[in-house]
Amino acid sequence: MRATIKDIAEDTGFSITTISLVLNNKATSIPTATKEIIIKSAKDHGYRPNQLAVGLLKKQTKTIGLIISDIRNVFFSTLAKAIEDECHRNGRNLILCNSNDEHQRDIDYINVLADKGVDGIIYGMSLDTDYEKAIECYKLMDELHLPFVMVDRYFDSLNYYSVSTDHFHGGYLAAKHLIDRGYERIACVTGPKHLQDSEDRLNGYKFALKEVGIQYDPDIIYEGQYTVNSGAEAMGLLKDKDISAIFAFNDMTAFGVYNYAKKLGISIPKDIALVGYDDIFFAEILEVPLTTVHQPITEMGISSVQLLLSLTKGEKIAKRNISLQPILMVRKSTGIS
Amino acid sequence: MRATIKDIAEDTGFSITTISLVLNNKATSIPTATKEIIIKSAKDHGYRPNQLAVGLLKKQTKTIGLIISDIRNVFFSTLAKAIEDECHRNGRNLILCNSNDEHQRDIDYINVLADKGVDGIIYGMSLDTDYEKAIECYKLMDELHLPFVMVDRYFDSLNYYSVSTDHFHGGYLAAKHLIDRGYERIACVTGPKHLQDSEDRLNGYKFALKEVGIQYDPDIIYEGQYTVNSGAEAMGLLKDKDISAIFAFNDMTAFGVYNYAKKLGISIPKDIALVGYDDIFFAEILEVPLTTVHQPITEMGISSVQLLLSLTKGEKIAKRNISLQPILMVRKSTGIS
Repeated sequence: MRATIKDIAEDTGFSITTISLVLNNKATSIPTATKEIIIKSAKDHGYRPNQLAVGLLKKQTKTIGLIISDIRNVFFSTLAKAIEDECHRNGRNLILCNSNDEHQRDIDYINVLADKGVDGIIYGMSLDTDYEKAIECYKLMDELHLPFVMVDRYFDSLNYYSVSTDHFHGGYLAAKHLIDRGYERIACVTGPKHLQDSEDRLNGYKFALKEVGIQYDPDIIYEGQYTVNSGAEAMGLLKDKDISAIFAFNDMTAFGVYNYAKKLGISIPKDIALVGYDDIFFAEILEVPLTTVHQPITEMGISSVQLLLSLTKGEKIAKRNISLQPILMVRKSTGIS
Repeated sequence: MRATIKDIAEDTGFSITTISLVLNNKATSIPTATKEIIIKSAKDHGYRPNQLAVGLLKKQTKTIGLIISDIRNVFFSTLAKAIEDECHRNGRNLILCNSNDEHQRDIDYINVLADKGVDGIIYGMSLDTDYEKAIECYKLMDELHLPFVMVDRYFDSLNYYSVSTDHFHGGYLAAKHLIDRGYERIACVTGPKHLQDSEDRLNGYKFALKEVGIQYDPDIIYEGQYTVNSGAEAMGLLKDKDISAIFAFNDMTAFGVYNYAKKLGISIPKDIALVGYDDIFFAEILEVPLTTVHQPITEMGISSVQLLLSLTKGEKIAKRNISLQPILMVRKSTGIS
């Protein structure tokens, strides 16, 4: 229930013009007694100047919006923290929206952030965002004249500003490690197939297989949802496929695989080796610490904020797409103690 | 770079009044050709009506603000998800701010949320918020006429609207379980002592000790920061104090204790039993699954949103402080398989 100048006008009997002059400190010719009455009334009502209007005047609100897809995924909450830190270092406030992996909420929150007058958006697409839906979001932000940077998920061919990990290389690292350890029947639990970050990982995996002449078998590729539950489901389906290893396309999925394997009495790594992706904090302290592909989350946060700030300042950008390099973290889930 | 009516005026040459009438659909006497020019220009500029002004008119923006203290703590990211879901069910958008456990950022974000015109705030205090700092925040939100609900952390004596777990009972449950299992030298890694939720847990622990005549020993009470790091530090200091069990006041702290114990070659539960608090998802899938005090996070999210919505509607509230009951989850870290 925000107070308006109208409320103060009703309360004091002074005109809106007079009140506005006083509250904007431009009331040189207005008697002090009048000023005092107006200022007291404004205080009593908890009146604040419309920040959006102030923002329009200054053309910047010093507020950045962040849309992430699943805040329960520790990868995203860690990324949000990194982005907040970098915003703070640059004198920006961050407001965060969680789309719950629903494209419609992406649209809703882009509108909300525009309405709230953010200077720009760092945008991690929801899980159900295919190429067409991505275009819809991009167009909306363009129409709203909102500078934006894609973080983590993106579509190459759309060529918008983005910061992400080189997922082809990440997928390659995971598969190559398993191959080097002697595994051949390596199943995958991917992300949704319409997402490029999942396709890139899969292509990296395929490349590693091809390199050593292992036949690609689509029968042991399970399409997951980057969630614990879809990891558990995948494990249920893959258990009878005579596999020796599983490459889960994120750590949350790997945790689901691990949990359900345990319930089935399948030992990791003795019966099946397991590799994750992300290297979130918990990967290291699990019952069987998880071999995983480390994404440089802090660097990703810093780069995305810096790129967006350059955009909001209208600076020339030399490089539209920042690609960060992943690192393989070898732990016990692939049999190495 | 939000477009203003001024930009459209400069572009088209029409007056601000004319443009405003057209864009607000009140231009009954203005020629269609003029209207078309103005609407086209507004579209080209990506002009949007000032949502805050629309909000003032309607007196509600259907947006709720949430301030949480540490988004990396899975307890808070899970809580944020629960709050987002309940907002969504009620047709509200949620914007989230992470204070990074700094009181000054609480103040900053309360101001940001007020400026952005939220209908109310769900507020989880930063870690360094003592009684005086809490009053500062409460006063600020009161002055801003912003309805607010405290979630998780609160100060009883201030008697503002709040939703939290009965932490005295939680502390009692944890200590009683350890006592029942035969442990007597039970160390604590608390939260910051100025926080009531930590003091309540400690008082519950003391009560359980007293019940069976175990002497309270302040020498084995370590003041932590609800973080993994402070858990590891505590373990380092407690290892020579001849203790048989540790009650960590949240799960993140327990993970730190566990990790460092492992590095020291101390086996949990064989050498030292360990109980956490929160029951975040990861507690169950650790190397040694963690006995912990379950907080009803989903219920907490739902209750805090419902309480805030009642406040924003000006409804009569029967109960200011909603206290939820914790449940003990017994797992291997206290020696039970």
